[in-house]
Amino acid sequence: MLNSVTDALRADLTSKLPAAAFRELTEAYLREPRGRYKGADGFLVAPDCTQDVATVVRACSDAGVGIIPYGGGTGLVGGQVMESGPTPVILSLERMTKIRDVFPKENVLVAEAGVILASVQEAADAVDRLFPLSLASEGSARIGGNLSTNAGGVNVLRYGNARDLCLGVEAVMPDGSILNGLSRLRKNNTGYDLRHLLVGAEGTLGVITAASLKLFPKPAGEGAALMAVPDPQAAIDLLALAGDLLGHQVSGFELINRMGLTFLAEVGPEVRAPFDDPPEWMVLIDVGCVAGLDPAQALERLFEAGAERDLVTDGVIAQSGAQRDAFWNIRESIPEANRRIGSVSSHDISVPVGRIPEFISRAQQAIARVDDFRINCFGHVGDGNLHFNIFPVIGNSRADHDHQRSDVKRILHDLAADMEGSISAEHGIGRLKVADLNRYSDPIKLATMRTIKAALDPKGIMNPGAVISA
Amino acid sequence: MLNSVTDALRADLTSKLPAAAFRELTEAYLREPRGRYKGADGFLVAPDCTQDVATVVRACSDAGVGIIPYGGGTGLVGGQVMESGPTPVILSLERMTKIRDVFPKENVLVAEAGVILASVQEAADAVDRLFPLSLASEGSARIGGNLSTNAGGVNVLRYGNARDLCLGVEAVMPDGSILNGLSRLRKNNTGYDLRHLLVGAEGTLGVITAASLKLFPKPAGEGAALMAVPDPQAAIDLLALAGDLLGHQVSGFELINRMGLTFLAEVGPEVRAPFDDPPEWMVLIDVGCVAGLDPAQALERLFEAGAERDLVTDGVIAQSGAQRDAFWNIRESIPEANRRIGSVSSHDISVPVGRIPEFISRAQQAIARVDDFRINCFGHVGDGNLHFNIFPVIGNSRADHDHQRSDVKRILHDLAADMEGSISAEHGIGRLKVADLNRYSDPIKLATMRTIKAALDPKGIMNPGAVISA
Repeated sequence: MLNSVTDALRADLTSKLPAAAFRELTEAYLREPRGRYKGADGFLVAPDCTQDVATVVRACSDAGVGIIPYGGGTGLVGGQVMESGPTPVILSLERMTKIRDVFPKENVLVAEAGVILASVQEAADAVDRLFPLSLASEGSARIGGNLSTNAGGVNVLRYGNARDLCLGVEAVMPDGSILNGLSRLRKNNTGYDLRHLLVGAEGTLGVITAASLKLFPKPAGEGAALMAVPDPQAAIDLLALAGDLLGHQVSGFELINRMGLTFLAEVGPEVRAPFDDPPEWMVLIDVGCVAGLDPAQALERLFEAGAERDLVTDGVIAQSGAQRDAFWNIRESIPEANRRIGSVSSHDISVPVGRIPEFISRAQQAIARVDDFRINCFGHVGDGNLHFNIFPVIGNSRADHDHQRSDVKRILHDLAADMEGSISAEHGIGRLKVADLNRYSDPIKLATMRTIKAALDPKGIMNPGAVISA
Repeated sequence: MLNSVTDALRADLTSKLPAAAFRELTEAYLREPRGRYKGADGFLVAPDCTQDVATVVRACSDAGVGIIPYGGGTGLVGGQVMESGPTPVILSLERMTKIRDVFPKENVLVAEAGVILASVQEAADAVDRLFPLSLASEGSARIGGNLSTNAGGVNVLRYGNARDLCLGVEAVMPDGSILNGLSRLRKNNTGYDLRHLLVGAEGTLGVITAASLKLFPKPAGEGAALMAVPDPQAAIDLLALAGDLLGHQVSGFELINRMGLTFLAEVGPEVRAPFDDPPEWMVLIDVGCVAGLDPAQALERLFEAGAERDLVTDGVIAQSGAQRDAFWNIRESIPEANRRIGSVSSHDISVPVGRIPEFISRAQQAIARVDDFRINCFGHVGDGNLHFNIFPVIGNSRADHDHQRSDVKRILHDLAADMEGSISAEHGIGRLKVADLNRYSDPIKLATMRTIKAALDPKGIMNPGAVISA
């Protein structure tokens, strides 16, 4: 059983850390973007170095007080917010914002956990390299949180998830010891890979304080196209064709449904509509080409080959960087439009890529049996990852469907599980999906996770209630 | 304390498993390629299905008997051979050789642990896909062992190590439970990533019985070149230049020292010498190009750009697949030549790629202070991974240097550690490097590994003595 923060612990930490580490606990630290969770209370500490993080963790371990690691606060599953229970320490990494090292020739950058994702991208760009992790919240998400949640985003198809971009981590373990794993080696087979255990553990096994990250040569040329496809199966076939024709030059392959454009037209943000008469399904294809190949020409060839096979019915290929940005702006604005409309239920599922069309079709039918809804199904179809989100029809409100929310969720999660899929493709478990994890996970995986958690964090102080239920 | 296999355990297993699972324990199972370790004894069991593997593990767990998981037997660090201690069960995966599924459009293949690596490659090839893991022993190594040791090889630069090619694993845990983790999802953030804990654990945390593996579209064209470089620094600069000019089309970048060719000339195997007057240093560069780019032309451009910057002094570009194979045959024959010469000490180190030249120079100087040796330094320089191997000069024998072996090893490992490197880049720890791991590992990493091992395998039955010392 954990204890609440006591005056003694506050005094202890205040005596050991500089005054700058203590900040006012504003509302922002107790909220999360979708407003589903509201933190009760907490003692906010923001150390600016790994040693001070270790001091905090050791003090909390001694006092049996829970720790909520806090990055950019952009997580969508409540991993950064504790609603009830003994008052925890909120350990913000916001002051650990140093880029410690950049090795352009080695394609490596070492960043502290509090560096904003966009700042990592900029630091890579400054040495003519690419850090490919990219997602809607990159302007406020912090790299430590991206790693702790194994963030995905729009370039996973080509470059992998956050874990694939990480060569090593420095972390403070639950007893306050510091794991020095900031390797920049490409090969290192010396025992268990603790990096991969900490990445994706959502702060339940320790606090990542810094990471060495992989950079890449920038593509010689970049381009994008929006292509109308007759149905999701055509999108999947077009994806395979793109792989055959363009290899790993395909960096993004996003499915967009007309509903996304409808929402944007209804509530904004304002975007330039790419088609006068938008098709029901379209894909946004992004390519980064090697020297000697023109991106627009490559996309043109893909379009022609796709049209020949009846996989594409219409399309527009970006003729400039600005047009490419405009295409992406449509895609990246859809989550904001969704928020403004107000979803009944949002989902972050994945299934094997080849089963995407079947999932969409079965999910649509199942949801229609519950009620009349608007469905905005979009996402990283190249990774088998869909955001299958459910909204009221015009005239109805979210509240009208409150009684159906859990049914809707259950139907879609059951379906994903039945189709060898995942109930959380990229957002993680946090607190939102703990019960789902218990329900859908392989029981041996769950038992093994519990064994590891109990062994590494016997007092259960690290992000209590997240991922693993008490 | 573990027990030896008893007659009761033999009888128990014999009653539960089909007769075909029991094979004669020939010498082959008690040896390893370099002849450093010789197993004492063991009870050989070769189940042909996961359930039977679980039966064996459960019986051993109940009896407190150690298990040596056995794949292709090609490991170079003694992970598959136990020299002393209570007689273990040798659990061979050789009969689990099914390719369970192939999903060409999804670029996924599901293989049982006993499938020979070359057979995985062939199964991918049969559906016009590439499984890129490739190493000298691919004709006898089994994929379960490749994963358990996180094998590296010649394509890591482009495609990553074995762990990067694995989407999920099925494994039998130390209590005999079966972890069903054969996901073929590209994104799945549902709790701790146990796949990455089992991959690279060398059988000490469980037995991998099957894996879902990533396939890739085949490059449209492949090519190779041998280029003479003035020194290792030029090789590293040429690597960076190759990245700038060719992006991720560079799939292999191997450093070869003249000593390798000298050894081949002395003891074979016979290879076609690429240069009349071989340079001291050369690199073998392999490319897999996208459609629209000619590999030979791409290599030509790299050669010209390299020559302009004085990074290349001579070169030969393969004009056919046969010539490309001949280049690779030189590289792949070097380990056999080394064996025939007989090394005083072999090393599998890595350092940050940018520090390779410094490592070579400092290592040469340090070794020269010990005695007069021949050094064959070669390897996957694109990954920062060198096989820095030490041989007697002509007229001397290995035995003449027996008293210096441990000094030589210490010097090179100290140097690698001092240079932020690894004492085992791709071969793993096995039994050979357990003491080294204890010496060079971050102590918190080691402590965390021990905690995990004790929690998941409290009786210590899984590959006892490997990786973690008792």
